[in-house]
Amino acid sequence: MFVTNDILGVRTDMPLPHEVAKEPAEPSRAELFRRACRCQEVPRVPVWMMRQAGRYLPEYRELRAQHAFLEVCKNPDLAVEVSLQPYRRLGMDAVIVFSDILIPAEAMGLKLELGDAGPNLPEPVRCAADVAKLRIFDPEQETGFLPEAIRRLHRALGPGVPVLGFAAAPWTLACYMVEGRTREGFASVKSFLYEDPRTFRALLSKIAQATVPYLKAQIAAGAAAVQLFDTWCGELNLRDYQEFALPATQEVIRAVKSDATPVILYTKASHHLLPAVARSGADVLSVDWRVSLRELRALAGPRIAIQGNVDPAVLFAPAEKIRSAVAEAIGELQGTGHILNLGHGILPATPVENAQLFIRTGQSTPIRPEQPVKQR
Amino acid sequence: MFVTNDILGVRTDMPLPHEVAKEPAEPSRAELFRRACRCQEVPRVPVWMMRQAGRYLPEYRELRAQHAFLEVCKNPDLAVEVSLQPYRRLGMDAVIVFSDILIPAEAMGLKLELGDAGPNLPEPVRCAADVAKLRIFDPEQETGFLPEAIRRLHRALGPGVPVLGFAAAPWTLACYMVEGRTREGFASVKSFLYEDPRTFRALLSKIAQATVPYLKAQIAAGAAAVQLFDTWCGELNLRDYQEFALPATQEVIRAVKSDATPVILYTKASHHLLPAVARSGADVLSVDWRVSLRELRALAGPRIAIQGNVDPAVLFAPAEKIRSAVAEAIGELQGTGHILNLGHGILPATPVENAQLFIRTGQSTPIRPEQPVKQR
Repeated sequence: MFVTNDILGVRTDMPLPHEVAKEPAEPSRAELFRRACRCQEVPRVPVWMMRQAGRYLPEYRELRAQHAFLEVCKNPDLAVEVSLQPYRRLGMDAVIVFSDILIPAEAMGLKLELGDAGPNLPEPVRCAADVAKLRIFDPEQETGFLPEAIRRLHRALGPGVPVLGFAAAPWTLACYMVEGRTREGFASVKSFLYEDPRTFRALLSKIAQATVPYLKAQIAAGAAAVQLFDTWCGELNLRDYQEFALPATQEVIRAVKSDATPVILYTKASHHLLPAVARSGADVLSVDWRVSLRELRALAGPRIAIQGNVDPAVLFAPAEKIRSAVAEAIGELQGTGHILNLGHGILPATPVENAQLFIRTGQSTPIRPEQPVKQR
Repeated sequence: MFVTNDILGVRTDMPLPHEVAKEPAEPSRAELFRRACRCQEVPRVPVWMMRQAGRYLPEYRELRAQHAFLEVCKNPDLAVEVSLQPYRRLGMDAVIVFSDILIPAEAMGLKLELGDAGPNLPEPVRCAADVAKLRIFDPEQETGFLPEAIRRLHRALGPGVPVLGFAAAPWTLACYMVEGRTREGFASVKSFLYEDPRTFRALLSKIAQATVPYLKAQIAAGAAAVQLFDTWCGELNLRDYQEFALPATQEVIRAVKSDATPVILYTKASHHLLPAVARSGADVLSVDWRVSLRELRALAGPRIAIQGNVDPAVLFAPAEKIRSAVAEAIGELQGTGHILNLGHGILPATPVENAQLFIRTGQSTPIRPEQPVKQR
């Protein structure tokens, strides 16, 4: 199938990467991704990049010059176009739908502004009454643009390319909801937690309850896997993480994951939390560049897959360094239960050719020395 | 001795906290601090707060309304006044001189702007020629205001109160020098490191060479101990930390530390680096709230003292939580080789009475259940 999205007047009627002829024996991207999530044997590791639809792509910047960020999220034509841009160009092994982790905050009833100075919630959640006002929303009614974008992506890409859905982990969404704009020391959210732990747990639980149908709607629309982003978990010490953030994350994962649909949990700056993160129930743990993947495997066991973890700053380095960073990441797990990714979102100023090199190198790196993979 | 600094027209001719009568058997603050740094027995843990001279104090805000930040750093009258403000009010066990970690960057030849949007170095270091231009400066000539402020503090406070000097660790100063204003993903400093590791090492080494006399001048002026701030070390993975940041830090510590003057090394978000940090040579390791002090002691051994590590956000919590956080931090090390502090700088919006409670609770907490300490 050809994608003929003409929003930008850009010619997009070229075959997509997976439509180009390949060895018949090679599994599809979807199959590769599924096997990696299940720690099954693969001929090579699948690779994608967090925030792969983003400002490092000139075609993205061009589209964003005409459309505000939230407009792109809420218009399935635009969201699909932006989601496909990196895939057309770089042919990674998964296409994550373009959206924002704060969409559910708005759907739960909070005003949301996404400006150049970062996200702002001008009426933050600060007390029990604020928590009580938050709504568990119907994702098809209130955020229908997101499952619709996933349906269209899934149709455009066919069954051979996995489409990924996502949401914030409850603690991270709570950080935005409580802090509003500023997050200096995360003082507002932590003092809420310390002053009124019961109400704060109610907030986390309410976010979890809203996140479950939100993710299920994405899965029903065709998401092959979903990722929870716990970007701010690293601000907590181990005890508070275990007492507050982890139970809400576990609640979401338990309700959402199935044999058909793995759940990926991304945790940033989480080195001190890993023993707890490993008990999250997630099928895949996605970590940043400060974690040794080998040590994480030893900690989490052979049934939990691992995603990561090249430092996004490495994509500013010479080609040689990018290649060696990819080889090292793959070497740590020897290709078993590993999805190659960055340790955090790709940075806006990243040279496109370096992103390309990252993907291409990941896809052509043999997972064991004796198993060379054909260059693409 | 009375301090009669009238810059603000504020009445400051009150006795300082240590001049108020006390039990003759109690060691002075300076003695307490020295013993804690050396892991010797103490009747209670000493306590101070990073960034204790700062915006949470109304008298600081009042002075800053009349004087720019750099002006305060460079005027010993103002720097002494601001350094003494928290001591007068809260009576902590150490007085850190008011200054900024970027002062040496300017003295090495870089333009420096410290505005409301954070520090800016408009002509950042990006290549070997830029590194070559950096000067090893004479600290008494170029930054004489700082040793002068320490001399005056030392005179004002007498031998019973330790005055602390400080500097950035080389990696952290390099981050500011190379990034300039933005630090999104630390891409500039890391790509410098990856592209030209040799020149980057030369930069770190040059910073180390400039930092040694800078700290020695502070010690000669009367600093009882000096602290290195490695605020950004947590951005590095363990290998890069060991290959780049650590050797330069070790170089400074080796040259500066002596029997008379301990060196404290503060590392933020360093959980993944601790085995290397423990080899820094520092007499005291200062860590944030994500580190278990007990585990750090097990790792670093009984001869390295530990400073920290209450989350600054806890100072927004109810009194009970502040008290229990202090008791837990002290309980972790049972008072041996421990300087109580926050895990990072006190936050600007912290209520003064909570800072006071932190100090008072720390000073009156028995280090072992059977050794009650008299309430101050």
